[in-house]
Amino acid sequence: MDSSGSTSLGSGPHLEMALDQWRAELGPENVILDPARLRAVETATFGAGNSVPAIVRPGSRAEVQQALRIANAWRIPVYPVSGGCNWGYGSRVPSASGCVLLDLGRMNRILDFSEDLAYITVEPGVTQRQVCDFLRERKSALWMDATGASPLSSLVGNAVERGFGHTPYGDHFSHVCGMEVVLPNGEAMETGFARFEGARTGPLHRWGVGAYLDGLFTQSNLGVVTRMSIWLMPAPAYFQAYFFTCDSEEGLGPIVEALRPLRLNGTLRSTVHIANDYKVLSGLQQYPWEEAEGRTPLPAEVMKRLRKQLHFGAWNASGGLYGTRAQVAEARRLLRRALSGKVDRLQFLDERMLRLAGRFAGLYRMLTGWDLSRTLELARPLVGLLQGIPTDQPLASSYWRKRTPPPAATDPDRDGCGLLWCSPVTPANAAPAKELVDLASETLLRHGFEPAISLTMITERSLACIVSITYDRQVAGEDEKAWACYEELLRRLYAAGFPCYRMTSQSSANLPPSPGYDGVLRSLKRTLDPNQILAPGRYLAAE
Amino acid sequence: MDSSGSTSLGSGPHLEMALDQWRAELGPENVILDPARLRAVETATFGAGNSVPAIVRPGSRAEVQQALRIANAWRIPVYPVSGGCNWGYGSRVPSASGCVLLDLGRMNRILDFSEDLAYITVEPGVTQRQVCDFLRERKSALWMDATGASPLSSLVGNAVERGFGHTPYGDHFSHVCGMEVVLPNGEAMETGFARFEGARTGPLHRWGVGAYLDGLFTQSNLGVVTRMSIWLMPAPAYFQAYFFTCDSEEGLGPIVEALRPLRLNGTLRSTVHIANDYKVLSGLQQYPWEEAEGRTPLPAEVMKRLRKQLHFGAWNASGGLYGTRAQVAEARRLLRRALSGKVDRLQFLDERMLRLAGRFAGLYRMLTGWDLSRTLELARPLVGLLQGIPTDQPLASSYWRKRTPPPAATDPDRDGCGLLWCSPVTPANAAPAKELVDLASETLLRHGFEPAISLTMITERSLACIVSITYDRQVAGEDEKAWACYEELLRRLYAAGFPCYRMTSQSSANLPPSPGYDGVLRSLKRTLDPNQILAPGRYLAAE
Repeated sequence: MDSSGSTSLGSGPHLEMALDQWRAELGPENVILDPARLRAVETATFGAGNSVPAIVRPGSRAEVQQALRIANAWRIPVYPVSGGCNWGYGSRVPSASGCVLLDLGRMNRILDFSEDLAYITVEPGVTQRQVCDFLRERKSALWMDATGASPLSSLVGNAVERGFGHTPYGDHFSHVCGMEVVLPNGEAMETGFARFEGARTGPLHRWGVGAYLDGLFTQSNLGVVTRMSIWLMPAPAYFQAYFFTCDSEEGLGPIVEALRPLRLNGTLRSTVHIANDYKVLSGLQQYPWEEAEGRTPLPAEVMKRLRKQLHFGAWNASGGLYGTRAQVAEARRLLRRALSGKVDRLQFLDERMLRLAGRFAGLYRMLTGWDLSRTLELARPLVGLLQGIPTDQPLASSYWRKRTPPPAATDPDRDGCGLLWCSPVTPANAAPAKELVDLASETLLRHGFEPAISLTMITERSLACIVSITYDRQVAGEDEKAWACYEELLRRLYAAGFPCYRMTSQSSANLPPSPGYDGVLRSLKRTLDPNQILAPGRYLAAE
Repeated sequence: MDSSGSTSLGSGPHLEMALDQWRAELGPENVILDPARLRAVETATFGAGNSVPAIVRPGSRAEVQQALRIANAWRIPVYPVSGGCNWGYGSRVPSASGCVLLDLGRMNRILDFSEDLAYITVEPGVTQRQVCDFLRERKSALWMDATGASPLSSLVGNAVERGFGHTPYGDHFSHVCGMEVVLPNGEAMETGFARFEGARTGPLHRWGVGAYLDGLFTQSNLGVVTRMSIWLMPAPAYFQAYFFTCDSEEGLGPIVEALRPLRLNGTLRSTVHIANDYKVLSGLQQYPWEEAEGRTPLPAEVMKRLRKQLHFGAWNASGGLYGTRAQVAEARRLLRRALSGKVDRLQFLDERMLRLAGRFAGLYRMLTGWDLSRTLELARPLVGLLQGIPTDQPLASSYWRKRTPPPAATDPDRDGCGLLWCSPVTPANAAPAKELVDLASETLLRHGFEPAISLTMITERSLACIVSITYDRQVAGEDEKAWACYEELLRRLYAAGFPCYRMTSQSSANLPPSPGYDGVLRSLKRTLDPNQILAPGRYLAAE
């Protein structure tokens, strides 16, 4: 995937010279050659073979500029990471072998914040937890949007990968502006109104005046984003979570048809998250080795038994209602009406009910035999996510096929968890959603994996589907099997008209060609990065 | 502003050769040299001196490609227009002298439409009226968003200029995707998922995968957009317009502070339009020459008298509430509470009330002396705009300083109406909004113009302010006075931190420099348009 054609990249005397200069500019403690640390960043949740000769850790925009100038001088490719929590998509492993890792984690300052105008301006090393704590300490009435990735993941990193969360601000790239970017040649620029000195609207208006360039620096290798303003939402007067399940596997289509009009007419202001049984089970527990008598993939009859036993459906959805009590009540009424006859259980939950339910869990268990406390334990982080509170609970599902329980401090890379995310997008109507799910399920099962699938109604018209290929990297041959499955799935999805919204750092070459676009992108790349030193190949289809 | 440095542009033997080839490719009837038609497109609503040697009218994407290849071969600059209704910002006049006008008006096909998924795919010549009629004929339950520019203005043209309207889909560029673009060299490309053959999500998802390039082709001279999908909104179950006025000139700040939280929390889902007294008066009638005893600008005491007489305030706002009856009722309650004590009149109006009021206008007049029918006549198009129905009523205000009434078929260019729009953006809070209005008012009055100002809460955090410099071009010296006023206003706005969201085709050189951004934009321009043939100088700050 390295398009420079040079074999000396990332090694040899040029690298030595670059390392010397980086040490001189950033301090020797910020140029890391420790083999254990290099091995760690070379490890993803799947077999990603690219080697990392060094890690450099700039502490400021000026140091990023210096670092890139040095990279250009010695033609050493670099690969930037912010939080490094790109789970399922390649973690911290670069897009090409020999890239020095440009770790932006030290740039972790919150630069600006406005309670009135509801935004925060951050550097790329700022984590979800940091912003969440910042808001709590200030007793702010604002919420951030969080992804389920990890409290340690970077807001900037997620936004430039165009990730999504669960609140009305769930589509992250729609809620950021005023970027500062260091170009591959080391020059810096700002976008939107932020480019004008003294402008008051840099963090408040996305387009600015003239060509809107922010999109160039998302899912690309054209620049390193070193600052970004992120919009925050006011905590609503009242909040309720909703959960519903459907026991029939055929239930997805009618659910999507019921929800789309409510998204389109603004009644549902946030993403709706719909998970299949495999997805839910992998969140509830690890692989039921005993019930499956050691076989994989999970036999259908075991899954059916577990669905009954653990009280979840073939389809399981969650979302939030935000507003005044009257607004939430009306949304509840409309949702209830729309889902009537299409779901088997529909539950609304607010903070008070969650507290009460916790108190009566024991009683409930006595009466029904269902251990509600376990469900509540799992519901709480999800309800938190709907309120923008980050959690690493969803990460536990990456331990699905492990034979030992997840440790207290999860680290999927370190622990050999196998996780590959494939994320096609489908129109938000019944037939294509079903077709996509059938295609993905058939493919994964045939390759011996459980098709854990979620569909998130990220916008009014489309569903982002996350297909998880989850396995145990410590079982020999599984890495290869998983990658083969992933590649076949990608091929079939593109052929069926379902391109993905996001690619792993290792799979840009799998993007199908689109001549006009690719040609423009390549000429922009040559213009802005003539030495091809920034994340070679990232999000560029193979030529 | 023409950065090519060549003096032969747009004239001489090269032009003749190009014209011959255009005739051969597009048909002689689509290459226009008729002096009257050339004079018409060289005319804007202010003194825009650029000459147009010819108009070429491609009828398809392939013909646009051919037209641009020929332009490159003979180094003839071209300037694309869609509907040509860029009133106040330069109409159809090119950004540089000698540009051939690339009139896309013949490309007026509606290419795709989905009632379920609520979008329409159009070519650049498709007008607001056309889409409105298309939806009506199909008895569609979808609404478009309309600007007040004209029923004949282009949806694509407005979106690439990042214009705005009045419904929840008012921020146009936020509601479009899947562009087809012809690059300056004649190559074509598609954006978003539309770039992949057979993808089903091209019109449904804005970002696609990989760098998001759509923004490059808005407010720029990097490509000609030949197709675009535009999202439509479902007609709400119930709709109400609201109007409020405030008699105090100091009332703007408190109003903005009251509205911002309602925009931020999603209660107000659409733009709110706030107009000062000058703006309202110029919509109600022409300049009151008699009352002002021939003097300009309008004396303050005359304005105060007219406010009382015609029942409008120092500040006057309008907006729409969309939803079920219960959702609208709750929004109404919250709006009423937020504005309590801050406005002098607050009125809600739905279709039924509008019909009733029309019936009782005569009685009302008898009782109050106020001619309600005139108000209703003016309210109806505004209420229509809030429902996405285009109108040219706002255009009548460009005849403000004329001494003869506007004709039935208005045409501000032809009729010598003077109109220059300056459109700074301010944070949506009290102090800067007031500061901006004071700055603009003082500047216009000092130059002898009435400061007709509107502020539109286009997003939750910012107000787009349109300052109209309205005059009579047939009065000698007024063009020069207006331009001097405009340039001083721009300078002062930038110095005060209020950059504009949009520039006239003649004023890109007035953009203040922003070295990093400008450098990138220039290198992109050189890469994509090495012969500088597309709209030279447009949205590029002077070097």
